[in-house]
Amino acid sequence: MDNETFRRCGHEFVEWIADYLRDVESYPVVSRVKPGEVKSRLPGAPPEAAESMDRIFADFREVILPGISHWQHPGWHAYFPANNSPASVLAEMLTAGLGVQGMIWQTSPAASELEDLVLDWLRQLTGLPAGFAGTIQDTASTAALCALISAREKATGFESNERGFRRPLTVYASGEAHSSIEKGVKIAGYGRENLRLIKTDANFALIPAELEAAIAADKAAGLMPACVVATLGTTSSTAVDPLRAVGEIAARHGLWLHVDAAYAGTAAVCPENRWILDGAERMDSFVFNPHKWMLTNFDCSAYFVKDPGALVRSFEIHPEYLKTGVDPYVKNYRDWGIQLGRRFRALKLWFVIRSYGAEGLRAFVREHQRLAALFRGWVEAAPDFELLAPVPFGLVCFRWNDGRRSDEELDGINKALLEKVNASGKVFLTHTVLRGRFTIRMVVGQRTTEERHVRTAWEVILSAARESAPRS
Amino acid sequence: MDNETFRRCGHEFVEWIADYLRDVESYPVVSRVKPGEVKSRLPGAPPEAAESMDRIFADFREVILPGISHWQHPGWHAYFPANNSPASVLAEMLTAGLGVQGMIWQTSPAASELEDLVLDWLRQLTGLPAGFAGTIQDTASTAALCALISAREKATGFESNERGFRRPLTVYASGEAHSSIEKGVKIAGYGRENLRLIKTDANFALIPAELEAAIAADKAAGLMPACVVATLGTTSSTAVDPLRAVGEIAARHGLWLHVDAAYAGTAAVCPENRWILDGAERMDSFVFNPHKWMLTNFDCSAYFVKDPGALVRSFEIHPEYLKTGVDPYVKNYRDWGIQLGRRFRALKLWFVIRSYGAEGLRAFVREHQRLAALFRGWVEAAPDFELLAPVPFGLVCFRWNDGRRSDEELDGINKALLEKVNASGKVFLTHTVLRGRFTIRMVVGQRTTEERHVRTAWEVILSAARESAPRS
Repeated sequence: MDNETFRRCGHEFVEWIADYLRDVESYPVVSRVKPGEVKSRLPGAPPEAAESMDRIFADFREVILPGISHWQHPGWHAYFPANNSPASVLAEMLTAGLGVQGMIWQTSPAASELEDLVLDWLRQLTGLPAGFAGTIQDTASTAALCALISAREKATGFESNERGFRRPLTVYASGEAHSSIEKGVKIAGYGRENLRLIKTDANFALIPAELEAAIAADKAAGLMPACVVATLGTTSSTAVDPLRAVGEIAARHGLWLHVDAAYAGTAAVCPENRWILDGAERMDSFVFNPHKWMLTNFDCSAYFVKDPGALVRSFEIHPEYLKTGVDPYVKNYRDWGIQLGRRFRALKLWFVIRSYGAEGLRAFVREHQRLAALFRGWVEAAPDFELLAPVPFGLVCFRWNDGRRSDEELDGINKALLEKVNASGKVFLTHTVLRGRFTIRMVVGQRTTEERHVRTAWEVILSAARESAPRS
Repeated sequence: MDNETFRRCGHEFVEWIADYLRDVESYPVVSRVKPGEVKSRLPGAPPEAAESMDRIFADFREVILPGISHWQHPGWHAYFPANNSPASVLAEMLTAGLGVQGMIWQTSPAASELEDLVLDWLRQLTGLPAGFAGTIQDTASTAALCALISAREKATGFESNERGFRRPLTVYASGEAHSSIEKGVKIAGYGRENLRLIKTDANFALIPAELEAAIAADKAAGLMPACVVATLGTTSSTAVDPLRAVGEIAARHGLWLHVDAAYAGTAAVCPENRWILDGAERMDSFVFNPHKWMLTNFDCSAYFVKDPGALVRSFEIHPEYLKTGVDPYVKNYRDWGIQLGRRFRALKLWFVIRSYGAEGLRAFVREHQRLAALFRGWVEAAPDFELLAPVPFGLVCFRWNDGRRSDEELDGINKALLEKVNASGKVFLTHTVLRGRFTIRMVVGQRTTEERHVRTAWEVILSAARESAPRS
């Protein structure tokens, strides 16, 4: 493709993206294609000859687009959001154009130094303690794995890296912790049976006394506790583990304390939400995802550690072909995680923070919290609905319940209700199970979601309930 | 930022990127900033109020750009290339605009199904055996870790995931294997002392008899061999391990065979390079990086496995909040690797393959191999230079040597020579050490590199040698 064709297509794509971001509301939120449908419309073998970008772009619009579920739709109330934003999309364009691979300082000093700078901006914005150093990981799953590796090395005096796993180490997290903790425990070689899922209280937060008891029992059995994971904003219900109490227990027993705030970390840009970080000085590592609630294109996880030396010592490699003369004076982020190669992801964070300003980020979070509280009020006021968890941030957990049926019956009714709601194409909500009950999750966190969208969601839910729920 | 501002800035950025790609040759290849210089020019705290995109973009051009090392420069002969291409940049724009997070089929069916399709296109393009199934990983480091986890689980009957690492398992790779193998061995809990670095022959390829002997010795010592890694195109010298012989040994001992072709895998688009894959039917897993030599923006590693069931069984998680009704009928790629969240990376691969066609990709690789052979000829013909390794692909390993000095003296001379060459700003080459000798690596693999650039590189080297090397 010559330079002029790139220019022409680039302009066409900018117009398309701008139209898409403006009109995304007009699409059904979730793709309606059937399994296999997209693939069946495309040739099974690669083309021998070059094809024109016009033709490729036409196929994108006609075949790919109908198979897209629209994460940027204002009716996206599913999972947690993965927001992009105009500033972030613009930065991604430059990142793609430069094509920088920032594995070490020398391969683009600006990529390393901007990452260093912007992660400290994030630290300041969220009120994390001074001294914590940050790096960008792709996802909170990877960050959790890094924390589990660091914990393993700390517990064994950096011997597991050298000699391999020699004796069982145990890990602690609440029963509501994210699945990536179990996954990381397996990958890092701890073994799933050495992960203790600690009981939670009525609000789905870890009970410190149960944690203490589990550690004591393991020690008595001759096992070696290595790591505890506290979650600030669990996936199912955004429950907040009591960080200070957990941190005191971790410190008393010499455990690595990893804090998973993947979704809720962004809330800490507002001082009124900083209560979640009370006790943060005890943390060894902390992760939150600007790619969720901070308007930064996926992927972008901010991983902070108290002692970068322990992180680097767990991951460093020194092959001859990567040595440079400035190594003693710079940060080579290849040693701060699993991957060697690194995209220039700091650029989009820098664009987003500057484009919104701290004020703008706070206003964004506050509006979503206001809308979630509004929705919670509607659920609480409705005779046939009930709230199933507290609403500290932007997630409302609820179900239809007329008070006359068994939990089993209610599970079926709510499952059908959710399907009906999503079939509307106007909104997309997902589910979880809380205390054995099928629970509908309504997240307010998409960049373009306004009060009118939240009202629409509630109307769709009420209407679906009128049509599908049993009459008294 | 309103939609119109996004549109205006988007067009401005397209023009800038097009100019950059056209004029990248005019920049010094490697950034000339000093450590700390970029950071010192930026405010240490985030802005309170929103800033205009014009101001952010101005800072990008004035502060960030001088800190960029230009991977897309035709004089980039360092490391291995990380090519972007117009088609790939265009696709990245759409990916950013859609903001899709394709963790499971439902969250964008097109992302899952296009990944499935395009990875099979890659399988066909490179002549991998039928039946191998592919997925996109971020880097070959992550893919190697996935292979090492699968190998661990296979060796222990899927018990390590459940119970943790219980007995030492051993891993084998040549002494020239990439540093990511050592890193993966540590992360997966094998321990570095259980990685056997097997001796290589005169061409830096693994010696099968040495592998066989190492496995036998470990078995005799009561250890359990689990995995062997063969490298097709090592990082230092692009040596090719004998796949068929290694595969026979792996099969005989029941070891997982992972094949790292991160750089050279792309060469297999040309039938005349397919000799490297002789014996491929024995592989359990295979990785190569379209983000290196196949014109696809970093990051994009193609990871293939013979038995997807073994991969999925190693990584699957089933939290309630990720369950969907179609799970039995679709591929949920969250279970094909470490991360849960996934960018829509198949799109850029699809754009690149269609935009170039199989013909275009082959022509691209062939031209680089032709230019590398040309450069090799100049080195061989020059009285004061010597070739230090075979040149099967696009990398030439050489040094200055007038035949009158010790290796130690030559190391110093060549180190100084390389620094002088890179100080020119016209080219960027890096080094390695082969058999203890400081070796200059000259890679021809950047998309825009033409014969005139390779000639320039040789002239810069000769001129630097005339100025800095000792006179006889």
